This record gives sequence, structure tokens and C-alpha cells, in this order.
Amino acid sequence: MKNYLLLSFLFIFTVPQFIDAQSISETSVDIEIVDQIIEEGIERSQVMEIASWLTDVYGPRLTNSPQMRNANEYTKTALEEMGLENAYLHQWGPFGKGWELNRFAMHANSPHSYFPVTAYPKAWSPGHEGPVEGEVLFLNVESVEELEQYRGELGDKFVMLDLPQESEPSWDPIATRISDERLLELANASEAVREQQENQREPNPEAAQRAELQYEIMKFLWEEKPLAILDYGYRGWYGQIAVGAASIPSAPGTPWGERPRVWDENVSDVVPQISLMREHYGRIFRMLEKDVPVEIELDMQVSFYDDDLYGYNTIAEIPGTDPDLKDEVVMLGAHLDSWHASTGAADNASGSAVMMEAVRILKELGVEPRRTIRIALWDGEEQGLNGSLEYVSDHFASAEGSWNQAEGIEEKEDYDNFSAYYNFDNGTGQIRGVYLQQNEDLRHLFKTWLKPFEEWSANTVTYNNTGSTDHIAFERVGLPGFQFIQDPIEYFTMTHHSNMDYYERLVEQDLQRSAVIIATFVYHTAMLDEKLPRK
Amino acid sequence: MKNYLLLSFLFIFTVPQFIDAQSISETSVDIEIVDQIIEEGIERSQVMEIASWLTDVYGPRLTNSPQMRNANEYTKTALEEMGLENAYLHQWGPFGKGWELNRFAMHANSPHSYFPVTAYPKAWSPGHEGPVEGEVLFLNVESVEELEQYRGELGDKFVMLDLPQESEPSWDPIATRISDERLLELANASEAVREQQENQREPNPEAAQRAELQYEIMKFLWEEKPLAILDYGYRGWYGQIAVGAASIPSAPGTPWGERPRVWDENVSDVVPQISLMREHYGRIFRMLEKDVPVEIELDMQVSFYDDDLYGYNTIAEIPGTDPDLKDEVVMLGAHLDSWHASTGAADNASGSAVMMEAVRILKELGVEPRRTIRIALWDGEEQGLNGSLEYVSDHFASAEGSWNQAEGIEEKEDYDNFSAYYNFDNGTGQIRGVYLQQNEDLRHLFKTWLKPFEEWSANTVTYNNTGSTDHIAFERVGLPGFQFIQDPIEYFTMTHHSNMDYYERLVEQDLQRSAVIIATFVYHTAMLDEKLPRK
Repeated sequence: MKNYLLLSFLFIFTVPQFIDAQSISETSVDIEIVDQIIEEGIERSQVMEIASWLTDVYGPRLTNSPQMRNANEYTKTALEEMGLENAYLHQWGPFGKGWELNRFAMHANSPHSYFPVTAYPKAWSPGHEGPVEGEVLFLNVESVEELEQYRGELGDKFVMLDLPQESEPSWDPIATRISDERLLELANASEAVREQQENQREPNPEAAQRAELQYEIMKFLWEEKPLAILDYGYRGWYGQIAVGAASIPSAPGTPWGERPRVWDENVSDVVPQISLMREHYGRIFRMLEKDVPVEIELDMQVSFYDDDLYGYNTIAEIPGTDPDLKDEVVMLGAHLDSWHASTGAADNASGSAVMMEAVRILKELGVEPRRTIRIALWDGEEQGLNGSLEYVSDHFASAEGSWNQAEGIEEKEDYDNFSAYYNFDNGTGQIRGVYLQQNEDLRHLFKTWLKPFEEWSANTVTYNNTGSTDHIAFERVGLPGFQFIQDPIEYFTMTHHSNMDYYERLVEQDLQRSAVIIATFVYHTAMLDEKLPRK
Repeated sequence: MKNYLLLSFLFIFTVPQFIDAQSISETSVDIEIVDQIIEEGIERSQVMEIASWLTDVYGPRLTNSPQMRNANEYTKTALEEMGLENAYLHQWGPFGKGWELNRFAMHANSPHSYFPVTAYPKAWSPGHEGPVEGEVLFLNVESVEELEQYRGELGDKFVMLDLPQESEPSWDPIATRISDERLLELANASEAVREQQENQREPNPEAAQRAELQYEIMKFLWEEKPLAILDYGYRGWYGQIAVGAASIPSAPGTPWGERPRVWDENVSDVVPQISLMREHYGRIFRMLEKDVPVEIELDMQVSFYDDDLYGYNTIAEIPGTDPDLKDEVVMLGAHLDSWHASTGAADNASGSAVMMEAVRILKELGVEPRRTIRIALWDGEEQGLNGSLEYVSDHFASAEGSWNQAEGIEEKEDYDNFSAYYNFDNGTGQIRGVYLQQNEDLRHLFKTWLKPFEEWSANTVTYNNTGSTDHIAFERVGLPGFQFIQDPIEYFTMTHHSNMDYYERLVEQDLQRSAVIIATFVYHTAMLDEKLPRK
């Protein structure tokens, strides 16, 4: 703090004139406010307290689940108590059924031993009415024909389909900060690269064949109705299970938008699906390999909710005060929904808490923004940015096409009143800079706004894109939407969509600093003479 | 392998004469046998298969539990099938009651949410006859007087005593190999240092006061009989729970040997004790802090066994063939027992499998050792080296006093027939050298024996001691007993006594190499003209 105050005096206040060309006539960093924001956000932070409510009390927050509704109510009330106005729940959808886990226990018995199995059902998987028991069977088929031998045999079995994962010790740290090499690469980027694009592959006939067999196996299992399908999640060791939604048979090649979803109102007869800790999956597999039978007792009870098929985004505002600009809006947001196997701390109570803390700081300081500042805590992000896409569609511009490629954009009344949207959704890690999303005209402005945070190494600006979260809902219709560069910490090694994503995985200092930086971005955006330039 | 063959020809075969002074007249490395051992141990290894039986099928192997008996039978039979002779189970004890977990499930319910709790009972904790339900209470007392407010209140409660652990991300790798710096420090050691001694502290009056309060709390809980005491184990994040035995009130200052043990035949009325995943403990604590009540449903059923209070070590031999030396014995061993929350893979199925593989290799090669080679798979190590101490006492020398300081040593008939004991018990990590246990006379011999394994960086010899496992049972009565320097891998960061110690944590190449090295040590020791020199 002290060093920072010194830095303030050395600061260049005025953004050079070339920003003019992009319709921003003049701007400055309001160092006095920045200092107050830092003091409030570091000395009197509430971010961990908010995060604890979101995780410990109201987690997990699966889209359209009762806990997500509770979290909607909690956040709406909390924002009102902070002094925000016009708080309401924006309805979107219909989405589909709500789901929650009411009871889960899994026991493995062999002739020699008993052990409690660590496992989580996939979201929207049905359960059973009471405890069920059955042997585990490894369904070992190489062709559709081989399936027939299992006809009539699976009704009282738990079925495993996959070979166990080979393991290796964790030689690399689970938690990391972004390296200087990577930051430099981002700073120097002149072409935008989305990792998804890099990973695109040529069609592979063998993979297509496997997908076809997989589809036939799934259809067969839908007919034969085993007690459950067991797998081991898609990432993790040391008891980590990364768990998403239950799958339903879908013919290979079906376009993404046309595939049936397990949460759809009319989907029924889903086979129960459970992801086990890899070590437990492996143990059972190796017992079966040695002809040691394993019997599972499963007590899995779930509830479905179809009384309200809509989802809700929490919205609230700090109204603008400039008569000419108060109809214009600066938005900040984060998705509030989570997956279900833990309390969704890094993904994304952290983002929700950071954004709530950012507006709390601004309200606490009594700032009078020229434009209206509006916070949105999105629902349905994990199932496809549903909440934010529909909010943008309702308020700013509707469009057809995919997430990345909008077609037929139709502007709404508020399209011209929109300045920018800032998003937070990559875990607990501190902001280390910002993605320009290829809007080079913003480089100097964002660098200027980040200058006070050099000491926190938070000052990298990259031409690059990042995707996969709610700023895309804005960007795809031509509105400035931004997501920050963050330290990964344990995001993709431990917490993301896993049963390990608890409050304990949050790093207090990182969240405090991120909230402070965002509060300054939002404030400065609200105070500019002009809206942010569009691409 | 190929490079190694070249190395063989360059090898100095004869150990210098100064070893003579210690009664070894002459010795050589039998390179032909070493090569055969390497080939059998690397190309046709069985170590992972043995480890899978010990863990997946016969784990966990808590001292005197039914699974430990199964493991005794399995290892005895497996050693016989390898061609070993005189296999039997050496009875020791009486130890105390056997215990096993028959059923465990724990559910947490708050007004807002349900979650299944990941937890393990402490060993020898009683359970309940059927499911029990009760609220969780944080027993927040600073003095004995404050306890009284809880009188009569705890019978239907689950009690937490500890503040939750503060968390930090895992910046250091969980898995490591021993560093060159540490190896050099070991190689250059001229004074023996036991880490336990380094950690000894001055008596602390505050700690004594806390211990006294802790004792009063435990006595109070024994009177008030809550449904269970909840804690979070003594190490770990990411779902890791390190769990030992249940505790019973013991007045501060009671000497170690006089404290009552929870497995003692006459101990009863123990309060159930359960260790939770830290993230779950923390979540419940923070809910209570916010006045959100948490109700636990616990289904915990255990069995106690008092039909046979004795424990058993598995013993088998490759008989010696030299008429003058076959009554002499070279021993190798590892403890077979484990803690109970996972299958005891690194601690210590790895050691047991390595030692079984070492004798399998020797039998497979049809070696004819001059001395008898005897393998021992110990029981009761985790409760105080019980199995090995008593075996040594029965066969070689009895003594009074503590583990480290024997008094009144009485030699038995076979004391003079004993050459050396090699032990393996520090996880899955490869052997990187050997501790001389301050017997400097062995340095050159052991260096010579390790020379073929330079390529595996397994050639560090240290004057230093290591303790805490079964070679101490030999060393304390003056017999040469050795334990190896090993790569730590995940031993003290993840696996040791935890619920994460599964087969997946074993590293195949490390176990193979360790078995090979030990087979050569045992073979060479059996072929020397003389027994190993004693200190």
C-alpha cells in the first residue's frame, strides 16, 4: 500500500490522444478513487465471507436446482443490503428440469473385504428409490455383435465400460502462477489464438468407428437397464473426480444444438451414472480381473423439479448519476451456477464473490458513477452460457448461429447504451492482465487502468482472445466483453468441475486484489466521456 | 541393461583387505548373478502383480484384523508356490483385539443442502448398531469450568473440538525424488543424526496446560458419550485424510509404555472417532459459525475380534547349501500390516512385494546360497514394531528398555548365527543407497555391492541412521539391521497412513529396481565367507 501511494504521484494521468479516434475523447485514472478502492478492498474485504456463504451454505449451485434458487435469493438480498438498486431475478429459458442429490452412499463388498466407495452421481442422473445391490461387471466388447451375450444379464448389475486409467505421481506442482514466459507471449501476441481452434483435428476413421460402437453400447444399456454405469470422471488423481452431466445416447454426428440433453423436460428412463474416485474404480477393476467378485450396494436418491423449468440470473445496479449518461450501462458479471460434486468455489463462487465485492467496494465508497453499473450473476453457464446469452438477447441484441459465430444480429433498444462487460471465471487466481479480444484500440486505455497494479504484476495486456465463458455472449453480437488473464492456481489440475472445489481452495489475497482491479475498471468505464470503442 | 553389461567388465571385483579386520576375509560381487537378477527382475517382474493382491484383494491389513490374517495366508502360500521352504506363521503377542470396518456412510444435512461426507473412522473406534442422527456441535472451551455447560447435552450430538485447518495451494510438487544435495549430505555425514532427536523441544508450560485441558475434555466426553468425535486427520488436503487409531483418555505425562491402548482386550466404552476430509470439516464448521445447523446421519458398523489376541508374522526360507554355513541366516523383511483407510500400498505393500519379489527372483534363478535366506513379513509394525521385536526376542536376543535403547540384552542360541537383516519400508520410491547405521566398517562392502546400480543412481552410502521401522528390532540388540535410502515420491505428502494409499500410487520401475538391488544384497550376504561385522 505504502509503495503504491508513492507510485500514484508518478503516474501519467492522461490517456494519449489517439484514443480519440475511437470516440473516447479524453480519460484519466482517478488515483484518489483507486487508492480508496485498494484500501477498502484490502483492509476491509468481505470477499471471503461472501464466498463462504456462496459455497458452504448455498453450494453447490447446479443450474435450476433448489440451491441455485437459494443462491439467487441470497445474492439478490446481499446486493440490496449493500445498497444496490433495481435488484431482481431475470428469468430465462425454459431450460429444463432441476435436480438435486438427496442421499448418496456406495459400499463395495468382496469375499475378503469391505470398503466405502468415494463417488458422485453425474448431474441429472436418476437414482433408485431405496438401496440396491448387485455385482459389478466389466462390459468388455469390441463389436456390436459381442453385446448380445449380455442380453438379459445386466438388470441386476453395475456396469463398467472403461479400462482403468494408468497412474503417475504428480511431479509438477498442482498449484502454479502464470509464468513470465507465458505473460510475455500474451503481451506480444499479434494474432488471436483460441486454444479450441488449435486443437481441431482431422476426422479420424478409427475414432468415428469407436463413437459408433459407443453409441450402440449406450443404446443397448438403455434397453437392458443396469443398476448404474460406473466410470471415473474425466480428470484426476488423489481422490479427485471431475463430474459433469449424465449422458444419453446420441447418434454420432448429431449437431451440438440438436442433441437431446439429460435435463430436457421430456427425457426419461435415463440409466443411473456414477463417477468413482479413480483409485476405487481401479481397485474394483483389478479385483474382477482376478476373478474376485465385487458387489456394490448403492443408496442414491435424487429429486427432479419440473414445477419451474426457467432459470434465473441475479441482476442489480448502482444507478448512473450523469443525466446524459445514466441510461448507458457498464456491466460486470460472473456465473453463479456450478457443477454439483462440491460447492463450486473456484468455479465460480470466486468470480461471483469478486464481482459482488467489487460493487460492494464502490457502494461503500459512495462513488457516483456517470453511467449505470450493473452486476449480473449468471445461471446456466455450465450448460452453454444460457443465462448470459438470453440476457443479452433480451436487452441488447438477439442473434442466431453458434456461440462463436452469431448470424442475423438484431439490435435491441439498449444496444447503443451499452459500454462494456467485464467477466470473472477462471478460478481463484489473481488477475494478471486482460484479454483485448482483438480490440487493439483498447490497449492503451487498459494499460493505463492497470498501471496502478504493476506492483501486483497485474499489468499484461494481450491482443489475444479467451473464450468459454459469459463475455462471449456479448462479444458475439459485437459488444465489448472482456475476461481477465488469471493465475491458474489449481484450476485445471484440481478444482475445475471436481469434487475438490471447496472454499479451502480459495486464496484470499488473490480474490481481494481481483475485486479491487475490477472495481477500478468498472468505475473508470462508467466515468469515461464516451463508451468503449467496439471492434 | 546394455550399458550396464559394459560396466560389468570394468568392475573391481575384490573388496580391499581392510574388511578382513572385521572378520570378512574376502568377497566379490558375482557379476554373472547380478546380471541374471537384473534380467529376471526387470524383464519378468512380478512385483506389481504381488502388490495388487496385497492391496486390491487383501488390503487394508490392520494388525490382527481378518484381512491381515488373509494376507498372512496369501503370502505364506505365495512364498511356498515360489519354492520357498519352512513357511509358517510366527505367532507373537498377545497384541489385543482385531477390528474391521463393515459399513460406513456419513451424510450431512443443513436446512439448505445435503452432502455425502468423505470420512474414515479411526481404527478400533466402535461404531453404532444402526444409523444414528444428531446435530454437530463445536465444543468451544478454554477451561475445564466451561465444560459444565455441556453436561447432559452431548448424548445426541456429534462433537467437533478443533478449529479448521487454514489451507494453502500446493505450490510444491506432491511427488519428488531425493535431491542430489540431500544425497551428498548423506554421503558426507560423519555423525549420525536421527530426525526425531533434532525435533526434540524444551518443555513448554503452555503446551502442558493445553494437554491437561485436552485430557479433561476427553474424560468429559467419555462421561457424556456423544455420538462421535469428529476431527480432520493429521495431514492433508484435496480429500486426503491421514488416519490412525482412536485415542482414549490418558493422563499427560504417562510414560509411553504404560498408556492404555485402544486395542487392549479390557478397553471398552470408547467414544466413536471419525476423521473427515478437511474440506468437509471446514464446511461444517463454517456453517455452524453462521448459525446454520448441520445434522449428521452416520451409518458406521464395525466388528471386533477377540477369539485370537495374537498376531502373526509370515516367515519362509531359501535354505542354505553350505554345510558349514547353512545354520547361519540372512534375513530380509518388510511390514505387511497397514493402516486401514486405504489399502496400504506405499505403506507397506510396496515393501512386502519388493521383498517377496526379491526371493522370487533368487528362487527363479535357482541360486544356491551358502547361508539360509529368510524372509519375514511383519505384523504390528504400525503399533510399535511389535511383530519384529518379538521375533528377534524369540530367536536372537531378548531385551528390556525402549525401542531405541535396549537394556539387559540376553542372547539366544541363534544370536551368533545371524548375519544381517535388510528392511524395506519407505514407500514406493526406488532405493538410492543405504544407511550404514553408524557401522563404518561396512561402507566399502556396501559401496561395492551398489556399484552395479550406479546407472540407477542407487549408490549413495551414508554413515547415518534411519529409524522408525523393523530393522531397529535387530539393531537395538546389536545385530546388523539395515534400511535403504529411498526416493520419497508421495510418501509423506500423500500416501503415508492416508486414505489415498492405493495401488495407483505405486511406481512399477521403482519397485522393480528396489527388488533387484535387495536380491543382490541378500545373495551377496549369503555368499560371504563371514557374517557381516557388528558394531
